[in-house]
Amino acid sequence: MLPAMPHPYLGLAHRLADAAGAAIRPYFRSALVPEDKGKGPERYDPVTLADRAAEAAMRAILRQEQPGHAIWGEEEGRTPGGPETWVLDPIDGTRSFICGFPTWGTLIAFNDGSGPTLGILDQPILHERLVGAEGQAWLGDQRLATRPCASLSEAVLFATTPDMFAGAALPAFEDLAERVRLRRFGGDCYAYGMLALGLVDLVVEAALAPWDIQALVPIVEGAGGVVTTWTGERPDDGGRIIAAGDRRLHAEVVRLLEGTA
Amino acid sequence: MLPAMPHPYLGLAHRLADAAGAAIRPYFRSALVPEDKGKGPERYDPVTLADRAAEAAMRAILRQEQPGHAIWGEEEGRTPGGPETWVLDPIDGTRSFICGFPTWGTLIAFNDGSGPTLGILDQPILHERLVGAEGQAWLGDQRLATRPCASLSEAVLFATTPDMFAGAALPAFEDLAERVRLRRFGGDCYAYGMLALGLVDLVVEAALAPWDIQALVPIVEGAGGVVTTWTGERPDDGGRIIAAGDRRLHAEVVRLLEGTA
Repeated sequence: MLPAMPHPYLGLAHRLADAAGAAIRPYFRSALVPEDKGKGPERYDPVTLADRAAEAAMRAILRQEQPGHAIWGEEEGRTPGGPETWVLDPIDGTRSFICGFPTWGTLIAFNDGSGPTLGILDQPILHERLVGAEGQAWLGDQRLATRPCASLSEAVLFATTPDMFAGAALPAFEDLAERVRLRRFGGDCYAYGMLALGLVDLVVEAALAPWDIQALVPIVEGAGGVVTTWTGERPDDGGRIIAAGDRRLHAEVVRLLEGTA
Repeated sequence: MLPAMPHPYLGLAHRLADAAGAAIRPYFRSALVPEDKGKGPERYDPVTLADRAAEAAMRAILRQEQPGHAIWGEEEGRTPGGPETWVLDPIDGTRSFICGFPTWGTLIAFNDGSGPTLGILDQPILHERLVGAEGQAWLGDQRLATRPCASLSEAVLFATTPDMFAGAALPAFEDLAERVRLRRFGGDCYAYGMLALGLVDLVVEAALAPWDIQALVPIVEGAGGVVTTWTGERPDDGGRIIAAGDRRLHAEVVRLLEGTA
């Protein structure tokens, strides 16, 4: 069965992901590239060059096809317009990228002004593209569904790094991590993707930017999961985030974390 | 240029990797599989089933083609013979496997009785196969080379998990990790592969089994790197391991760690 997602910007979002992937692929596992900016040679690492090239490629398409839409990208910041806004993170998981691991992704969200209604997580090396919209989530022609997980003691928990938790958030996270079946670091956006596939139960993070999370919201929600802040509110602004595949698990985690200063 | 590695068992090692990959692929990202062993239904997770199926497939080929060789596998233990010994870990990185991340590998070493002279790290989902023998290492038709890294302060360090370090090894590792440019967890064998590709500088681990490390030795050495124990000795028995892409970095790490009780 093929995706039946009548979102008006689905085709455009796919073209953005295609362009970003084409821009990024030449840099993956490549050596350092020198760049001469006229003030003597400067050195840019491949991830910086790939980040910039991918965002520029997506912006060129949006300028052409939807010049009235706003753009909010990690590399170039905000371009006015809207209320429709494209929220872009060309490479989420730059440390994995640098180390040659293919577990990073290009994040593309369409926000209609009230929240993200369409999200893509694209892994252009593995040719894996997760799409969420209209209450559904897909990986190619596979409809995605999170798995049941009634309690923390059965949960597989991901966070990108313990270094993202500041102040009281670190002991709160560590207390949570003591209660789960398995805790893993290093997932970036890919961990949210595996949550949508039903292979991970919980992602708990902090210090996220809006472009780190907006594309993942329609994917996780479309697969049956829940994404909020630690206090149970809308996650669109980033910050401290809980993503859970099962509502019961989500409620248990909010109860544990919501009082964290 | 194609690999010119006249190791007598290279073809056989490739056939073992082919068979293991075919056995494992159906289980990756699959749901739990019930198994009835006559004493009522027991549940096996996909990684256990995949581990067993892959080792059985490799053992069947070895029994047929080299019945005099010994086998030492993670799942079924030792089968007598030798001095030639095949040292097998069907899935190194079971936690990554369980979570749907493709950053695990099948490890196959041929040991002639004096040490591993041929190693394969195969990632059957990504169709990436690293081969080391005769002082060379290859990924497909790409000859591998580690990158220069003169000192710890420039190094990218991997370890599978902080939980592998017991007693004095944990503070020793933490002190080391404070001195590097970037520290990452969660690599398993894949981190050694990225070291051979010149994208990671250092892997420091503990509590490894022989089948966790023997296949990786010819790959890292063939790419120009060094693998020893924390005291600078041969790594074939596992335990506490240092793998470095640059000899200067390796010497610096041995100086820091060799006194650890």
